[in-house]
Amino acid sequence: MPRQNPKTTHSKLQRSAIAGMQGYTPGEQPSEDGFIKLNTNENPYPPGPAVQAALANLDAAQLRRYPPPRADEFRTTAAALHGVQAGNIIPTNGGDELLRLAFTTFADGGDEIVVTEPGYAIYPVLAAIQECSLQQIELDDDFGVPADFPERMAQSSAKMLLLVNPHAPSGKLLSADYLASVAAAFKGVLLIDEAYADFVDPGQHYNAIKLINEYDNVLILRTLSKGYSLAGLRFGYGIGAESLVAPMMFKTRDSYNTDYIAQQLATAALNDVDYARSTWERVRQERAVLTAGLEKLGFDVVPSQTNFVFAQMSQASAAEGLYTALKARKILVRYFNQPRSAHALRITVGSAEENIGLLDALADIMARGVGES
Amino acid sequence: MPRQNPKTTHSKLQRSAIAGMQGYTPGEQPSEDGFIKLNTNENPYPPGPAVQAALANLDAAQLRRYPPPRADEFRTTAAALHGVQAGNIIPTNGGDELLRLAFTTFADGGDEIVVTEPGYAIYPVLAAIQECSLQQIELDDDFGVPADFPERMAQSSAKMLLLVNPHAPSGKLLSADYLASVAAAFKGVLLIDEAYADFVDPGQHYNAIKLINEYDNVLILRTLSKGYSLAGLRFGYGIGAESLVAPMMFKTRDSYNTDYIAQQLATAALNDVDYARSTWERVRQERAVLTAGLEKLGFDVVPSQTNFVFAQMSQASAAEGLYTALKARKILVRYFNQPRSAHALRITVGSAEENIGLLDALADIMARGVGES
Repeated sequence: MPRQNPKTTHSKLQRSAIAGMQGYTPGEQPSEDGFIKLNTNENPYPPGPAVQAALANLDAAQLRRYPPPRADEFRTTAAALHGVQAGNIIPTNGGDELLRLAFTTFADGGDEIVVTEPGYAIYPVLAAIQECSLQQIELDDDFGVPADFPERMAQSSAKMLLLVNPHAPSGKLLSADYLASVAAAFKGVLLIDEAYADFVDPGQHYNAIKLINEYDNVLILRTLSKGYSLAGLRFGYGIGAESLVAPMMFKTRDSYNTDYIAQQLATAALNDVDYARSTWERVRQERAVLTAGLEKLGFDVVPSQTNFVFAQMSQASAAEGLYTALKARKILVRYFNQPRSAHALRITVGSAEENIGLLDALADIMARGVGES
Repeated sequence: MPRQNPKTTHSKLQRSAIAGMQGYTPGEQPSEDGFIKLNTNENPYPPGPAVQAALANLDAAQLRRYPPPRADEFRTTAAALHGVQAGNIIPTNGGDELLRLAFTTFADGGDEIVVTEPGYAIYPVLAAIQECSLQQIELDDDFGVPADFPERMAQSSAKMLLLVNPHAPSGKLLSADYLASVAAAFKGVLLIDEAYADFVDPGQHYNAIKLINEYDNVLILRTLSKGYSLAGLRFGYGIGAESLVAPMMFKTRDSYNTDYIAQQLATAALNDVDYARSTWERVRQERAVLTAGLEKLGFDVVPSQTNFVFAQMSQASAAEGLYTALKARKILVRYFNQPRSAHALRITVGSAEENIGLLDALADIMARGVGES
């Protein structure tokens, strides 16, 4: 097996920027069974019957030919779901590809990119590959953006601003009206990473997609990994003004970036959005149960609009011990050894059974004194 | 449906390099049935029973979780097939992704890249995205490299040299010994694009993969699109020294670049290489029949080591007329309106029935005077 961090000297032929950077480390994906896996925000419920049927309908002979290069059937389906035009949609090999394409298309080396801190750890990696300079805006103690943020963005000459909304790792939501004010103020591309938007409470009436008709600098990321239980399929898409989508669609994208099977299954998943919605509602119900259980154990849990919760401890040093003790019991959660998150665990909302397993294990571990410092 | 070449103004937010370039136009992929499709070099035979079985074995529930991020099972399988180590293999979302990763990893903006002319039209597109300067080495009349090529490469300061071997669109093969002499002379990365290597006559004893153990600047591209009848799956891989592969594997690649289903089916395909080999042999037999038939019609056909033939006409103006007349009869071949290929058709080797259909149609069209000028 190849090592994850090979000790071999990397080639001197690589660009100096690549030699000088660190890659992204994804969450653990254990190859063994038997884990309660609450570390990479997968949906606890399987894909729906429409996806199962689409998979069963496939014939390997269909793979002999190249796939539709622009995934037009998926584009039409996604456009209908969101009330936009097919030309507003770019299908991608996971949401990560949209992020990469945005950097490739809109940011030259040396250009400034704005992200929040904390935020999704892939953004700085992509900035390093493209040799962009990174401005990290520190969120406040409650993970809110600073009060002068729109004003600072109005004065910024950055080429792109990436906001994950609802926010990771905190789960906090910015309103669409607030995002509109930022889009109006900012001269570059506002990329709203909505990887977790499917899990927002309907009562929030959150809808940022409508902004693409008013602001030709707004690019929205969606993924089927979480909301549609299809992390293994690698399918996401971007939504934006046609002028913003077209250069990625016709110039910077690999010509056949999504495969035939993924196009078929992704289209089936969106056509059966009602099934997916039923899983979002179950996740929201379980999120409330998990949050209450963690609070009862003494965690300070940020109110979450996502399918994970950010469970903070008063002593920073304790969180890593809990992470390790849980892992020893084959329960995986995410621990980020970073200034803003070292005191916390990011825990995916699992099924009722998984959440109970986690809470019971935490109670037992903490009763034994692990997690105190 | 989105237009292929939208007339909408592309965003002013895109990089000036992107605004100033043309995207790659893939070959036509008709959505209707009933075409004899000999334009994008698909294998005429379907994937084998092992791929069918792997597809039938899939359960949609397996897609809920992220895929193995490094596709280690595929790496191990490919390494065993080629007699290298898993660390020498990088799986990619089609061969195109490997090409892009090579540019991203090894070529800074302003760096020189060497390609041959004619060659694969994606190379100049990737160079334009990365703002590399492109040196195009003109092949001779028989599509051979110029005699002073290794010497020129020894003096070159280019960061990468891309050679498609066997060559497209001509089908001509350079020997592994010749490639070794180029690798020894050239200081940058020698990327050998072996998209069509599966179709080389065994009697040629062609094996460039062994070069990776001697030359740490050799990167070989393989794809399952042609040899394994899996163009729709989007799966390829790179083979190179671990030092060359590692920065693409751990830094520039999207973290989950290949999906679970593609990993499973690609691994099954390589594990049943004997089936694939049987299709390569059938393609070689049909290549001989097709070549003879085209020569009988008056075409000058370059001896091909690939699954396509380059059929040249004495009058340059005639080829486009034939392409158009064939298309009207629902037979697709590839016509490149470029200086070195405007007098020719690039025709995929189809099944016996497809090749007869093509030859009969050509004979009829030419008897009617189309294709004369």
